Amino acid sequence: MNDVINLAQKLSLFDERWSPKTIARLNDYEIKVAKLEGDFIWHAHDDTDELFIVLQGQLTIQLRDRDLMLSEGELFVVPRGVEHCPHTDGEVKVLLIEPVGVVNTGDAESSLTASPETV
Amino acid sequence: MNDVINLAQKLSLFDERWSPKTIARLNDYEIKVAKLEGDFIWHAHDDTDELFIVLQGQLTIQLRDRDLMLSEGELFVVPRGVEHCPHTDGEVKVLLIEPVGVVNTGDAESSLTASPETV
Repeated sequence: MNDVINLAQKLSLFDERWSPKTIARLNDYEIKVAKLEGDFIWHAHDDTDELFIVLQGQLTIQLRDRDLMLSEGELFVVPRGVEHCPHTDGEVKVLLIEPVGVVNTGDAESSLTASPETV
Repeated sequence: MNDVINLAQKLSLFDERWSPKTIARLNDYEIKVAKLEGDFIWHAHDDTDELFIVLQGQLTIQLRDRDLMLSEGELFVVPRGVEHCPHTDGEVKVLLIEPVGVVNTGDAESSLTASPETV
């Protein structure tokens, strides 16, 4: 049986940036936390939407036609197929929800591609 | 195209208890916020897990074999088919994620059954 999960405690278990860690599962979706800092890469997920919820800090999600600014307590769903590039000016903590098996860099090959990991 | 969603702003739009409001969609899942206060009813969702994330306050999720206490920044996934009964001693604000069409009272008929609503 599942246990209660504390987001801050899970975030304290790692320090890597841009490397989402799975903390729970909801049917065929994974709930992940991540620490973001600096620039990610442009990519899209052709088969799925992607949910970002900002837990701490300020996140910019660059889209091709505009930039979105998310603060703590704000969320955005990147629609499937939409190119996006996260950026931050400092450390940002986020909650992500997406189907099992989604790769962080989507359709882009990159040294930032992270392996699945559960904490 | 979607917009940035502020959880506190969405929660300010209604005052009903035990009546989750949809604020965004992630593929075939709905992201909802709700205000909880007092006692809900025992129920289960036979076809799906259900994610609770506490945004403010303290939530007790009673299971048949134990009580779980969730504070702000904590989450719990109620596995499909598991009977549960939320309870609070004051107002609690939560984020819920579950497939489109899930009814708040699951398999139980009740005056607390809420109609789907988007805010």
